[in-house]
Amino acid sequence: MRAVRMTSPGVLEQVEVPTPTPAAGEVLLAVGAVGACHSDLHILDAPPGLFPTPITLGHETAGTVEAVGAGVTGWTPGDRAAVYGIVGCGTCRGCLRGAENQCRRMPPGGIGLSRDGGLADYVAVPARNLLHVGDLDLTQAAPLTDAGLTPYHAVELARPALRPGTFCVVIGIGGLGHMAVQILTATTAVRIIAVDTSVAALDLATRMGAHHVVQAGPEAVERIREIVGPAPDGADVVIDCVGVDATLTTARTVVATGGKLLLVGLGGGTLPVHPVADAPPTLPLETSVEIPFWGTRAELQEVIALGRAGLISADVQTFPLERAPEAYDLLRRGDIHGRAVVTP
Amino acid sequence: MRAVRMTSPGVLEQVEVPTPTPAAGEVLLAVGAVGACHSDLHILDAPPGLFPTPITLGHETAGTVEAVGAGVTGWTPGDRAAVYGIVGCGTCRGCLRGAENQCRRMPPGGIGLSRDGGLADYVAVPARNLLHVGDLDLTQAAPLTDAGLTPYHAVELARPALRPGTFCVVIGIGGLGHMAVQILTATTAVRIIAVDTSVAALDLATRMGAHHVVQAGPEAVERIREIVGPAPDGADVVIDCVGVDATLTTARTVVATGGKLLLVGLGGGTLPVHPVADAPPTLPLETSVEIPFWGTRAELQEVIALGRAGLISADVQTFPLERAPEAYDLLRRGDIHGRAVVTP
Amino acid sequence: MRAVRMTSPGVLEQVEVPTPTPAAGEVLLAVGAVGACHSDLHILDAPPGLFPTPITLGHETAGTVEAVGAGVTGWTPGDRAAVYGIVGCGTCRGCLRGAENQCRRMPPGGIGLSRDGGLADYVAVPARNLLHVGDLDLTQAAPLTDAGLTPYHAVELARPALRPGTFCVVIGIGGLGHMAVQILTATTAVRIIAVDTSVAALDLATRMGAHHVVQAGPEAVERIREIVGPAPDGADVVIDCVGVDATLTTARTVVATGGKLLLVGLGGGTLPVHPVADAPPTLPLETSVEIPFWGTRAELQEVIALGRAGLISADVQTFPLERAPEAYDLLRRGDIHGRAVVTP
Amino acid sequence: MRAVRMTSPGVLEQVEVPTPTPAAGEVLLAVGAVGACHSDLHILDAPPGLFPTPITLGHETAGTVEAVGAGVTGWTPGDRAAVYGIVGCGTCRGCLRGAENQCRRMPPGGIGLSRDGGLADYVAVPARNLLHVGDLDLTQAAPLTDAGLTPYHAVELARPALRPGTFCVVIGIGGLGHMAVQILTATTAVRIIAVDTSVAALDLATRMGAHHVVQAGPEAVERIREIVGPAPDGADVVIDCVGVDATLTTARTVVATGGKLLLVGLGGGTLPVHPVADAPPTLPLETSVEIPFWGTRAELQEVIALGRAGLISADVQTFPLERAPEAYDLLRRGDIHGRAVVTP
Repeated sequence: MRAVRMTSPGVLEQVEVPTPTPAAGEVLLAVGAVGACHSDLHILDAPPGLFPTPITLGHETAGTVEAVGAGVTGWTPGDRAAVYGIVGCGTCRGCLRGAENQCRRMPPGGIGLSRDGGLADYVAVPARNLLHVGDLDLTQAAPLTDAGLTPYHAVELARPALRPGTFCVVIGIGGLGHMAVQILTATTAVRIIAVDTSVAALDLATRMGAHHVVQAGPEAVERIREIVGPAPDGADVVIDCVGVDATLTTARTVVATGGKLLLVGLGGGTLPVHPVADAPPTLPLETSVEIPFWGTRAELQEVIALGRAGLISADVQTFPLERAPEAYDLLRRGDIHGRAVVTP
Repeated sequence: MRAVRMTSPGVLEQVEVPTPTPAAGEVLLAVGAVGACHSDLHILDAPPGLFPTPITLGHETAGTVEAVGAGVTGWTPGDRAAVYGIVGCGTCRGCLRGAENQCRRMPPGGIGLSRDGGLADYVAVPARNLLHVGDLDLTQAAPLTDAGLTPYHAVELARPALRPGTFCVVIGIGGLGHMAVQILTATTAVRIIAVDTSVAALDLATRMGAHHVVQAGPEAVERIREIVGPAPDGADVVIDCVGVDATLTTARTVVATGGKLLLVGLGGGTLPVHPVADAPPTLPLETSVEIPFWGTRAELQEVIALGRAGLISADVQTFPLERAPEAYDLLRRGDIHGRAVVTP
Repeated sequence: MRAVRMTSPGVLEQVEVPTPTPAAGEVLLAVGAVGACHSDLHILDAPPGLFPTPITLGHETAGTVEAVGAGVTGWTPGDRAAVYGIVGCGTCRGCLRGAENQCRRMPPGGIGLSRDGGLADYVAVPARNLLHVGDLDLTQAAPLTDAGLTPYHAVELARPALRPGTFCVVIGIGGLGHMAVQILTATTAVRIIAVDTSVAALDLATRMGAHHVVQAGPEAVERIREIVGPAPDGADVVIDCVGVDATLTTARTVVATGGKLLLVGLGGGTLPVHPVADAPPTLPLETSVEIPFWGTRAELQEVIALGRAGLISADVQTFPLERAPEAYDLLRRGDIHGRAVVTP
Repeated sequence: MRAVRMTSPGVLEQVEVPTPTPAAGEVLLAVGAVGACHSDLHILDAPPGLFPTPITLGHETAGTVEAVGAGVTGWTPGDRAAVYGIVGCGTCRGCLRGAENQCRRMPPGGIGLSRDGGLADYVAVPARNLLHVGDLDLTQAAPLTDAGLTPYHAVELARPALRPGTFCVVIGIGGLGHMAVQILTATTAVRIIAVDTSVAALDLATRMGAHHVVQAGPEAVERIREIVGPAPDGADVVIDCVGVDATLTTARTVVATGGKLLLVGLGGGTLPVHPVADAPPTLPLETSVEIPFWGTRAELQEVIALGRAGLISADVQTFPLERAPEAYDLLRRGDIHGRAVVTP
């Protein structure tokens, strides 16, 4: 079968490999769609040794069951499924609670990360990593497993604070941010404030349910403060999908005392937490900061439910398998709108 | 009556003032004990205008009801009470939930902060700021309202992670830290790791229930790692009661993926939260950071219950009212062991 | 001023009484609207001594601030407000947490229950019982304080289980049930199954966002099971707004293992909880049953936010003050559609 | 090897069977200890067809790893382990959250329930059902998996209400109840009220940390009320480990408004939940009732941690394998004190 693999550190190429046979407990999936994710670029750019080679990339996969290995129940050829990407240790405190994204023996155990992923005609995955998607379009199902799950998990972490009438600021209305706005619209009655440099992105946010839009820039904090009121009040939740110094500063400046700050975007900025008694704090008291990571299987089931109900959808640009390397090039240059999805 | 007041910014002196009359909804308390807190030094050192003057200091107060104002029910002269120090707005999201320590119209509304406190023969306080202490010694009750409540609140924030068999690191076994160890011992089955520069402090921690002690220093992280295991595992909770750069570094280095980091000590250090995809993180993923502030009325009720049951107690050094200024001098020089409590 | 009072047990009449003067901590409200609630009939029918007489009824009140008593901050004449009906003791475990509906020194301390309520030209209430309603229509604001708050609180109790794609059954689409459907639609992505004997009620439920409707009757359980699947799966949450034997049986029969059963309707039926090891259980294991009571101040603030955002609205039939007794007669006969609201 | 099996419905006998071979994903355990549980009697008494035959009983198992099947990681021969008894479907909402005790495709999928259990020289179990026990005595580890886990799970369900200074009533200080008292002592600062008919049982409760003991009988409610105060206040949590009509009546009569009622004992009584507006309620408002079932893998890990720390221990009476039938006879006659543990 065809597979797009990192054959040696940094080298991505399409090769022919034997179709895998599902081991005991595994399912062989005929890949229908697989998202090309920024994280794949990090894998390609990582120092030798951090990720195994050769490895088939692709950690956002959806497909159709082709065959099942020994001992697998609940799956039959023809079933349509999305792949949960994390393979936790199964025994640590995180895994025991169903939070494999908090696995304490990772990183990086995952499909397309530590074992072959979905950028191929077929992929073998542990049965427990599959979730039924019903009749959901596979090009939608694939990006939901990461670009949908990651912001959903961030929203879940903040959910106790996302009460009717409170404010949630979403910074960066790109691949993750536009999903965050949809998830908030579908599952809460908060007032959503979308922030982005791009007017087109802000228009998109409005169509997806944002109640206020603020263009990023030197006056953004003042605009947001006009909406949320003066400190120590403010936004109950801020989801920063960018993560550069400027957005982190905006985030910590507009969040309320007792609020929640979720750093979803890994832009490389730094948020200084400076506990002092006698100077203006860099972060309001009682406000939590967290860097969420991906999500849980239970959350993915809920993301799929939202997708099937038509309440969220990813903006998708499809590529055939042979154009996967090109998709990554476009991604690296910032020329992908929405999510690049490869359809083998 | 006698009162120890900040008569002008930075000036502390004992003066004679009229005994206050309790307004409607207030109670007049004959002060039995009042703690001298580091925060009082911050108030004395604060720039003019931040705190009102003249003001009687003292935000850790316990006493006996002397008289009640109009409309007060539930309190009778002779009742013994501890004073909850925060006066919230009563109508913001924090106050509506009983979390006046998250009041969004503060700071700094409090007894001994924005209105006269307990460093006097009598103090008038809103009835809702009083909690019954039964036969608890007032010199114990007073420090529980802050030195007890603050670490208790931090423990409460971390409680979902404080499960049997997990690790909690307490850094700094001083006034707050030694209470934290006792609270953990009384209310959880976690394994407590106490960290301090002082061997005497570590011995104290052991007597109060710490399972492991680690002397602060260049090898502290390695010692803690021997106990908690390698990253991404680690301590489920770290309570830093110091808050300088060195302790913050230790804290973020030993906390587990998915753990909780509570910055109780306001030492002026900085913890950089740096969300990146392709470098070792400064903070494990899924780990929350928070600067707790004081606590809630409901929590104070529970702290008092722990005190009355003999499960926690503060190490107290008492001073008569006329020696209150001296107590602050000793506090400033670091010459108070445990908590200085003034007994008017 | 005019007031509709229970002058002696069971006797309701309109009388002239002096306009009250707000005491310290109280606000005088010019009543704009007050809901006539089934609970008022229970008060009228209660044995002598359970409720004080004479007393002005009306525990669902909204109005405009006329005057403020001593010590009141945050309220100015002209402000528009809704009245939170419960007057808790302020010091029990429930009240300390902001859950006055769990006050352990009640019942029945409330406005229109233990002290004069809103069925009058003016009513004096503690300032802390008021919440701002902005420009929300007062005939909407009034019923939100009970007919809106009660189902909202039930939804809050169930919220951790109300996850995208799960099922919530609402039994009885009357005054409380039609609010429950709106609240679920506005704040969750669950699939709502509405159950009622009346086709018109089911049509209303559909318009308000219910995904499935099932007519009550002998086949209702079978219809619901076709939607939710076989036991031990089922509905994650059931909100029974009727509470007679038949609906309680439906409720416990369709709820899932690990689900939540909220008994909002006080119809007088009995749900037998029968813990046995070797017979079909009357209630699935791990499923909680609860009789919610009214709600909290924080929840009322959120209900008002939903009302102001246009996400929920009560179906209201208005009466002038002099027709209040007639409204209760109609209510008793079941001839009120939606909520009867008196506008003094 | 030897195995004690239900060879046909109701017939228990020791037979010789082939030693099982661990399938892929399974581990073969040399059984060190296996608890004889009342539930086994229910299995023996169950109507034909409800449980498969022949089947080796024993769902409370601990042992030493003998061999591992294909694909198993994390386990090596010689490792000592406890067996989590439930085999959930792995894909329902309960299982996805790590709550296999809420599996929605059970009952009764379990080791010793739907597949061969531990009453044998060896047992093959899925690797994910094993938890490390370190150097914990296996005769202790075995009963912890059910007699320890079941009350621990009940305590977990109640934990948010088990705050310092509150009251928890434990009814029935037998096999489960004496573990409940120890768990409460180890992990909370509540005041424990133990209730039993037997003075010896009450003495045991006192030794294990109960603060008050009340002998069951007509005056028990009055005695408990003297401790917890009058309704609507009361015990924040009641754990009924008996479950007959008399104990259920006591339980619902002393629980506080807003409290929690956990029905752990499956004694066959009935608790009537009667939602009415105008009569004394059978259950306080806002109080939840639940029939807990066993527990989760994560909770078992914590129970084992408590056992290893010496904070809880089961009172154990051991029997060699050939005397297992006799142990069940004694159990049926009520002649086992503590837990009967078979040591193959």
